[in-house]
Amino acid sequence: MAKETQWNEQVDVLVVGSGFAGLTAAIEARESGKNVVVIEKMKSAGGNSIISDGGIAAPDTKLQKKWGIEDSAQMMYDDMLKAGLGLNHPRLVHAVVSNARSAFEWTIDTLHVPYLDRVDLFGGHSVARCYTPEGVTGGTILKKMLQRIDELGIPILYSTSFRSIITDAEGRVVGGAVLKEYDYKTDAGIPANIRTRRGILLASGGYGADVVFRSIQDPRLDEKIQTTNKPFATAEVLKSALKIGAASVQLSHIQLGAWSSPDEHGFGHGPLFADYILFQYGMIVDPHTGKRFVNELGDRKQSADAILRIGHPCIGIADDKAVACSGWDLSKAVRKGVVKKFGSMEELAAAYALDAETLHASVDRYNGFVRKGVDDDFRKPIVEEASPIVKAPFYAMRLWPKVHFTMGGLSINERAQVLDFNGNAIDGLYAAGEVAGGVHGASRLGSCAITECIVFGRIAGQNI
Amino acid sequence: MAKETQWNEQVDVLVVGSGFAGLTAAIEARESGKNVVVIEKMKSAGGNSIISDGGIAAPDTKLQKKWGIEDSAQMMYDDMLKAGLGLNHPRLVHAVVSNARSAFEWTIDTLHVPYLDRVDLFGGHSVARCYTPEGVTGGTILKKMLQRIDELGIPILYSTSFRSIITDAEGRVVGGAVLKEYDYKTDAGIPANIRTRRGILLASGGYGADVVFRSIQDPRLDEKIQTTNKPFATAEVLKSALKIGAASVQLSHIQLGAWSSPDEHGFGHGPLFADYILFQYGMIVDPHTGKRFVNELGDRKQSADAILRIGHPCIGIADDKAVACSGWDLSKAVRKGVVKKFGSMEELAAAYALDAETLHASVDRYNGFVRKGVDDDFRKPIVEEASPIVKAPFYAMRLWPKVHFTMGGLSINERAQVLDFNGNAIDGLYAAGEVAGGVHGASRLGSCAITECIVFGRIAGQNI
Repeated sequence: MAKETQWNEQVDVLVVGSGFAGLTAAIEARESGKNVVVIEKMKSAGGNSIISDGGIAAPDTKLQKKWGIEDSAQMMYDDMLKAGLGLNHPRLVHAVVSNARSAFEWTIDTLHVPYLDRVDLFGGHSVARCYTPEGVTGGTILKKMLQRIDELGIPILYSTSFRSIITDAEGRVVGGAVLKEYDYKTDAGIPANIRTRRGILLASGGYGADVVFRSIQDPRLDEKIQTTNKPFATAEVLKSALKIGAASVQLSHIQLGAWSSPDEHGFGHGPLFADYILFQYGMIVDPHTGKRFVNELGDRKQSADAILRIGHPCIGIADDKAVACSGWDLSKAVRKGVVKKFGSMEELAAAYALDAETLHASVDRYNGFVRKGVDDDFRKPIVEEASPIVKAPFYAMRLWPKVHFTMGGLSINERAQVLDFNGNAIDGLYAAGEVAGGVHGASRLGSCAITECIVFGRIAGQNI
Repeated sequence: MAKETQWNEQVDVLVVGSGFAGLTAAIEARESGKNVVVIEKMKSAGGNSIISDGGIAAPDTKLQKKWGIEDSAQMMYDDMLKAGLGLNHPRLVHAVVSNARSAFEWTIDTLHVPYLDRVDLFGGHSVARCYTPEGVTGGTILKKMLQRIDELGIPILYSTSFRSIITDAEGRVVGGAVLKEYDYKTDAGIPANIRTRRGILLASGGYGADVVFRSIQDPRLDEKIQTTNKPFATAEVLKSALKIGAASVQLSHIQLGAWSSPDEHGFGHGPLFADYILFQYGMIVDPHTGKRFVNELGDRKQSADAILRIGHPCIGIADDKAVACSGWDLSKAVRKGVVKKFGSMEELAAAYALDAETLHASVDRYNGFVRKGVDDDFRKPIVEEASPIVKAPFYAMRLWPKVHFTMGGLSINERAQVLDFNGNAIDGLYAAGEVAGGVHGASRLGSCAITECIVFGRIAGQNI
């Protein structure tokens, strides 16, 4: 292929994607003296990174010490393996946890990202190790990355879509075919070939919004399931690597958010109520039976699978005491109509076509478990601050899973090199971030995605 | 590629693999007037099919009616979806269950396979629907298939290894590159190209014995994990299809047998004790703690995952009453040293370096659950015939999972055509049996593999 190729331009390193992984790699590659170009199919930078909350996990940091939190890379490793059901690739997890602190410090020392003066405990982590940038948005980190990209004079070619990988006779990656002036709606643009002296880094994100691709791997995830991702989170770049013999890893491991509402698009406002109030202090019922069917405090995977199994949205219910005790402001979610407020349990039952008597019986049964501190039905851990659901107004929300993250992707080694199905590195091809697979196994812990992007972005930028 | 190819021979249909799926397809294709060649990399036919127990599942059969068993395709569908955790591709499962009865009858009417006059209930099936050939071995079915192959004059080229798929400029599959006089040990042979007028059927089996390939998908399954498969159950044919753009499905779903012993090779004699006596009537302890750690009657996946999680073989224990009540003859397993017999619980403890006092406490606790009919610790269902573990001699066995079946494979549609990642059929390429994926989802039910092989073998042979 390479022989017949007409090259339009030439660089050391071509970075595909302008999220956290791609920009980090571009910065590191440029700082180690390489000539770099970043391409981005959309009109602006940031991909899904920009809509994240920006939370990044790292062990053994100064902030943890300040707050008296004892942590270690090994503890984070153990937490990730536990969540991943042991399917994580150990060497990749090791790379993440042992470089997480320096990656976090790099965002402070080199990028000057401002963080809130707090350390948060997210679900599945054994200690608080999550740091949140000011504004509670990935946009804060992205802005600082773009500043650094600008200072270093790294060009970002927007509206440029990556189409295929060009290899030479020995199978070495020597360039990429792209479409410039790319129109996302018509999937058309002007073909150009970029020659790469050192290699290509694929940092194109996951396939959460790619219905055809994801439903091959998990047929439950058809067009009836929404996603928290932007609609451009599709698999074409991943597929371009599979085409030249790259190995895929665990493509069928796709994370669903169980905290999402079918009554709004994207991530939305429902998750605040569901994830921070409902699951701890409330209960979920199947509207067809009026009964509970799952431990509300199970992990994301257990809850989402249980809801998909009943086959229709379920109803989450909490009382005023729970909302008050949580300290969260639900006014936005209520205003948007995602969370609804009811003066009585009868009103609530009527709104969701629940049989009022059955619902009463279910609430009474659950309240009994809360009082005695043991859930005989689903073994939900009854948290200390929990109290029976008795005090009006009652809050309710419909729950239906959304695709949130794709754990699977391209097989890489700890140097971020893409591997073939024999486990050999493909010369000149690298991947980092959500397009790569194997770090998170069966299920990703919250706040570990950004850590992965920055750790492997740095590794790729240095090695490529 | 096709243009430059020197063709050595030409057929309508090339079948890769001589297990149940391949031979069935060859018979159907020949009977519908096509000229067929089967290739087999080993020196004799049968692959893993020949070492199976030959059990085949089908609903709504005459044998079921004779024994008064009510069943339906829908019930079998529901059972398969439940075991597969809903990840099965519905259209493929539908194809299996709605053609299962006719596939089973075909083995009787066309092949004259002799079956035992019984219908068995296997784990995870809601009714008895499993039929076992005489001799309780897949060899019985295979012999009849080979007779039919012979009658039809279909050549089987032994010691012929499939290497790559040859496509024309439009991406249509037009032939295959093989190695004749193939030497399995040196992986060498004489290159030849077989042109196919209608297509290639890949029926090469799973990748249970391919350590590199399987451990990319599940890194726990390295060389320390044995397999019940023959050592030639490797992924080269599957990879040849991925190379031309075939989609893979759920490659990371790999079934482990939890009933296997690390003290013997292959399937062995331990599973009879574990699967038919131990799990129902006995208990399993972790030798490091002397305590139980899992519901012994969980499904294959739950049990195997739990044992892998503790990280070392565990000890299964049952008493003489359990063995007697089961009616099974353990003499072979005992003679081989896989199942051991002890005059007292103290002797048993000493043999496995268990603390005798802790073991006594664990057995007492478990016996208490058996007496009251409720397992407070792991919610194992206490079966009616269960009795406390009290009567010497005691039987024990070490348990450590083995790779048994690979649910993942090539993406196919209900016509057995191989699909690309856009869901489009690849012209001229078919797959059936274990090399195809998506039928079983996260976990396969016992006795459904042979049904799948024969159903999709027939479909492929008719459609190709």
